Amino acid sequence: MKFGLLVSKQHPAGVSMVERFREHLDQVRAARDAGFDLIVMGQHFLSTPFQEMQTLPSLARLAAEAGTMRLGATVLLLPLLNPVDVAEQVATLDVICEGRFIVGVGLGYRDEEYEAFGVRRPERVARLVECLEVMKRLWTEEEVTHRGRFFQLTRARMLLKPLQRPHPPIWFAANNDGAVERGARLGDAWVINPHAKLSVLERQVALYRKTLQDAGRPWPAELPMIKELYVAPDRPTAIRECRPFLEAKYQAYASWGQDKALPAEDSFDLAFEELVQDRFIIGDPDDCVRELRRYAEALGVNCFIFRIQWPGMEQARVLRTLQLLAERIMPALQR
Amino acid sequence: MKFGLLVSKQHPAGVSMVERFREHLDQVRAARDAGFDLIVMGQHFLSTPFQEMQTLPSLARLAAEAGTMRLGATVLLLPLLNPVDVAEQVATLDVICEGRFIVGVGLGYRDEEYEAFGVRRPERVARLVECLEVMKRLWTEEEVTHRGRFFQLTRARMLLKPLQRPHPPIWFAANNDGAVERGARLGDAWVINPHAKLSVLERQVALYRKTLQDAGRPWPAELPMIKELYVAPDRPTAIRECRPFLEAKYQAYASWGQDKALPAEDSFDLAFEELVQDRFIIGDPDDCVRELRRYAEALGVNCFIFRIQWPGMEQARVLRTLQLLAERIMPALQR
Repeated sequence: MKFGLLVSKQHPAGVSMVERFREHLDQVRAARDAGFDLIVMGQHFLSTPFQEMQTLPSLARLAAEAGTMRLGATVLLLPLLNPVDVAEQVATLDVICEGRFIVGVGLGYRDEEYEAFGVRRPERVARLVECLEVMKRLWTEEEVTHRGRFFQLTRARMLLKPLQRPHPPIWFAANNDGAVERGARLGDAWVINPHAKLSVLERQVALYRKTLQDAGRPWPAELPMIKELYVAPDRPTAIRECRPFLEAKYQAYASWGQDKALPAEDSFDLAFEELVQDRFIIGDPDDCVRELRRYAEALGVNCFIFRIQWPGMEQARVLRTLQLLAERIMPALQR
Repeated sequence: MKFGLLVSKQHPAGVSMVERFREHLDQVRAARDAGFDLIVMGQHFLSTPFQEMQTLPSLARLAAEAGTMRLGATVLLLPLLNPVDVAEQVATLDVICEGRFIVGVGLGYRDEEYEAFGVRRPERVARLVECLEVMKRLWTEEEVTHRGRFFQLTRARMLLKPLQRPHPPIWFAANNDGAVERGARLGDAWVINPHAKLSVLERQVALYRKTLQDAGRPWPAELPMIKELYVAPDRPTAIRECRPFLEAKYQAYASWGQDKALPAEDSFDLAFEELVQDRFIIGDPDDCVRELRRYAEALGVNCFIFRIQWPGMEQARVLRTLQLLAERIMPALQR
């Protein structure tokens, strides 16, 4: 079992981002010293109502504190981006962290983002697929000529190659069934989202397995899952302390349309207790171990990536969670 | 007088970029300890015949070693890029380096780059101008609606603002006269290129001054100039040691069309001795001080940014140049 930290670079309007970013540097050092395997960050643009730093420069700076942990972008919104730009930036990150980079890719779901990048929503799957195809060719071929629907290259030569050959692992985000199938066919792993309920994920893991089999592709060496996790010495304290921050975060998700990206059987428009159930990991250390084992066993997950901070949650609680994870939860899951 | 180091992230095909990047980290620490004021990096895509790392993640990682030096991108190729993406990345860098970021902008000149980003060359000025306008609005306004030729935004809110208000200094690269005039009207400073001859630059500085006056804008607090510089204990050694690397670099520039961007009176298609004359700073420490004084006095430059490495030049010579700059050249120019 491997463990990762999702560094939550979304913060409320008005707070000092210099102080928050210094806290993130401390979080990364603490995770490194606690034996975590990887650090990841997500991507959004125009992230109102939050302040949010951009992914790749932030990860590049965190690399200086990461020791031998891997670094990952989970995920880049590929339909918005240019394949030459992303291919070069990913290769650069892979050099900076000396062959320990992971590139996650996803479709996004927010109209503001599509408008800002001049992308029509119905094109987004075709853009992702073409962008990824061009990136893979730039990483692996000496010279690329490409005549596509969205991108044109004539004898393009990108001499800076990623350190990892043929390229860093490509993790696919997937909320709906079509994305799960695409991830099975085109990615090196499905990075399971923190939003979906266990019952939905059990059905989708079966779909993922079947799609892999039909495509003649092996089960991935690593099946990573992002989880919202909050641990405190006792369960009532855990629920009381995290609730306002998680509730606000999921209200923002609902207003962004994140739950519209989930299968029709699920929604975020629920009372907090119901939202938590089979979705978030909240409790005392033993609760967390028991719950995480359920997900690992039901889904085959062997890499948990924890999000332990939401906009407004203070650093002391984040550091306590990291400590309880390292002392009480991670050792129990390794046994 | 202020001093900067342009970190040369272009390297020959086949060399280990991990080792080269570790050397860049050492160069930045050496520059910091030697009292340099800033570190900058340029931008190109598909930089054949070289391997080249991307600018913003590289600068973000260097920030960890930079102490209180400023960091700058000189320059980002704005016609290729999306204003929301660049505005967020620049704000992120300004947070990472705690209010010490400089954003340089330029048009670029290579057909490969325009094709890769789907930009038609005749649009490049209009794209740069519109992109910069949107970036400035995102940095300074709460909510931006923009109906432009290339970009559309509807009530876009970018809550992450740069630390420097209203925004980091905007430095304009300019080779031809039109770009010098645009830099005077739209930028906070013209960052003078290393390619042009002194006679061309004297004429263009007069144009820059006149354009500022006509626009009712003040002379900039800082007039930076990038210079190719190679110093050795004696002049023949300096010329012998740097010549193969500088010659190869300027042959690559000529093949990229960089000299076509210069005014018609100039070219790179010259014998090395003639190419050096009134353009590069090569010699013993006293030669370098004398030459740099000429440029400072003729042009009003008060910030020299030195490029001291070209593809293939080994680290020991770069570190010797840094030492001679710090011990022999910079103190003399401060007097």
